Amino acid sequence: MKTSPLAPKSFPTLPPIDGVRIAVAETQIRYKNRNDVLLMAFDEGTQAAGVFTTSRVVAAPVTQSREALLQGTARALVVNAGNANAFTGAGGMQSVDRVVKAAAAVLHCKPEQVYMSSTGVIGEPLPDAKITNALPDMFGKLSGDGWHDAARTIMTTDTFMKVATATANIDGVEVTINGIAKGSGMIAPNMATLLAYVATDAAIPHNVLQALLAEANELSFNAITVDSDTSTNDTLMAFASCKAKHTAVASLQDAHVQEFRGAFTRVLRQLAIYVVEDGEGASKFITINAKGAVSDASAKVIALTIANSPLVKTAIAGEDANWGRIVAAAGRSGEPVMQEKIGVWIGGVLVAKDGARVAGYDEAPVNAHMKGQRIDIVIDVGAGGKGVAEVYTCDLTHGYIDINGSYRS
Amino acid sequence: MKTSPLAPKSFPTLPPIDGVRIAVAETQIRYKNRNDVLLMAFDEGTQAAGVFTTSRVVAAPVTQSREALLQGTARALVVNAGNANAFTGAGGMQSVDRVVKAAAAVLHCKPEQVYMSSTGVIGEPLPDAKITNALPDMFGKLSGDGWHDAARTIMTTDTFMKVATATANIDGVEVTINGIAKGSGMIAPNMATLLAYVATDAAIPHNVLQALLAEANELSFNAITVDSDTSTNDTLMAFASCKAKHTAVASLQDAHVQEFRGAFTRVLRQLAIYVVEDGEGASKFITINAKGAVSDASAKVIALTIANSPLVKTAIAGEDANWGRIVAAAGRSGEPVMQEKIGVWIGGVLVAKDGARVAGYDEAPVNAHMKGQRIDIVIDVGAGGKGVAEVYTCDLTHGYIDINGSYRS
Repeated sequence: MKTSPLAPKSFPTLPPIDGVRIAVAETQIRYKNRNDVLLMAFDEGTQAAGVFTTSRVVAAPVTQSREALLQGTARALVVNAGNANAFTGAGGMQSVDRVVKAAAAVLHCKPEQVYMSSTGVIGEPLPDAKITNALPDMFGKLSGDGWHDAARTIMTTDTFMKVATATANIDGVEVTINGIAKGSGMIAPNMATLLAYVATDAAIPHNVLQALLAEANELSFNAITVDSDTSTNDTLMAFASCKAKHTAVASLQDAHVQEFRGAFTRVLRQLAIYVVEDGEGASKFITINAKGAVSDASAKVIALTIANSPLVKTAIAGEDANWGRIVAAAGRSGEPVMQEKIGVWIGGVLVAKDGARVAGYDEAPVNAHMKGQRIDIVIDVGAGGKGVAEVYTCDLTHGYIDINGSYRS
Repeated sequence: MKTSPLAPKSFPTLPPIDGVRIAVAETQIRYKNRNDVLLMAFDEGTQAAGVFTTSRVVAAPVTQSREALLQGTARALVVNAGNANAFTGAGGMQSVDRVVKAAAAVLHCKPEQVYMSSTGVIGEPLPDAKITNALPDMFGKLSGDGWHDAARTIMTTDTFMKVATATANIDGVEVTINGIAKGSGMIAPNMATLLAYVATDAAIPHNVLQALLAEANELSFNAITVDSDTSTNDTLMAFASCKAKHTAVASLQDAHVQEFRGAFTRVLRQLAIYVVEDGEGASKFITINAKGAVSDASAKVIALTIANSPLVKTAIAGEDANWGRIVAAAGRSGEPVMQEKIGVWIGGVLVAKDGARVAGYDEAPVNAHMKGQRIDIVIDVGAGGKGVAEVYTCDLTHGYIDINGSYRS
């Protein structure tokens, strides 16, 4: 698989996080000659938070993780790539149960402190013995380094690893936030086909961590789409090892946690943007801003309808400034738009306003913008409100058809 | 443009319909060396009905047709291909007004008895003088024949003309129903990017004709999708010249109109199926039946979510029996499904039941079915209800990208 042309030129080194250790293994669940199982171990006292797919068809590990999360702490995360363990019936739940119990035995913790995630093909039984057999050896190899290995281990159709890191100051104490993610197809909000994990040494109680994660998710993974398909396995989790010795955090509104809150959101947003940049077959990264909507929620529906339109995405792939398709997508979004007041900007150039193409429209600068790798679209939907939204997507190319139409990914 | 591999092998001859006459012309609005304007003239007393796009961004001719329809009769229909006259502001409405008045002058009728439709590129001013200049000559050429010419004249990215005909007996009198349609991309329910016109010599009052049209539309054009994009110009109209001398029809429930009702629906359904068979880049025609849903409406949402899934459509293009994607799409539909009770059949073969792949699953017969041109998918969504729906779509191939990403269509 060729690396996406939108891939970043370099990747940051992710520093160790106190209280978090990593090991990976090659178990050949599906892939050969690469690692496919990740074990992340957390010290006692680690707080956990998570958001999961909104699909009504849910993979067994998602069901397990949701239940485990009720007690709010974490000691281990086990992730496998190559098999989604989705739509696998009672057998699928039994597979998760065996893996979780094996990890708990190795780590000397309770089974409900272990979280499992899987990604890959839907509907095939998970050969869980390959994972449980690998765990003791992985336990022996746990280390504070290896974040890049972790990110590479969870990839499926991804063409590059997705890592992000930031530091923040909480009341005079510097803390670190590391994030990894995977995902490139079956990507749509609520949530994308993706797995993403963020860890920090900050001391954040699980209820505050959950509120922060939900907020940041709306501005990151729930603001991207590749192909409008939502997965059965989407999982975003955050782990706070609480090793940093800063003033206690009681609420997301605490003044001393605001810098951390911003840094945390930036890490998630960077990971989400990487997922779009690795969109299956993507050749262009598209930012869509909707404004003038009756609410932020309405603006987001409109922006995502444009972002999901196959006709908009293929036009952009063809470098065609076919703004009529943008307007048409806004019109069918089901949200209030006022045709006579709609304005459209492409690459900063006003193309249409008040319901028609601008007088003396010069397509040349817009065509030049369309030839670039970063396409910017702004639409004022004319509904007279203050609702705004920014979403990210990629174009729809032959590469998407090749990837999804030629083998079982 | 190569003819779709799913095109019918032959086309029926459409007989003249008493009270309906046709003329076509080449005006070079966009296309060269082909006809691009259709004039259909109706005798006095012709009843009209119509359903239109649900988009909030609506082409000028749709606004005009909706208003004209309030008086219930028709004397003329003018359709142009190559320019949609959508998002063209006040100038677009003035263009329609000039065409409608010119047609009314030629036909000696009221402007509100003239309906206009346009299809083609969005956002460019319509050169309406090309149409008005052609109308007098077209008036002189009106004839009861020429249905095939009419169907070819309204084509844009279509690779074959869409015509259907049927006869029905109303209380001892045989009546004829002719239909034509265009459309192959920007096709999704409510309604498709399509124009379709049905004419009959039956004597059907406009209120009954409207009820019949709405009912048949749900089972035909509103049960198809090519790419989930709904257009600004979708128009389906029916015209009844009332020349046939049968017992009066007062209601859609009248016993003597039931045969006509069935034949009318079959004509619309055939046209809708042709639109899917001409889906941009289509190589396979897909029928999706959903059952076991809480209502017919719920079943339709689920079936259409599967039909619109890029991952389902690309898998079918690749002849991959990737049933997990079908289940995943049902799960994200937002409608009630019971994972533990879901069953899936492909080509009549039970693939999954009770939330997991069937024991001893043999993929061979399913793979053989996937290699054919007609793919049949049935899903029992397990919600325990009696809701059912049947929808039609096509696969997503390189051809779709070629057509929509390489020129402004």
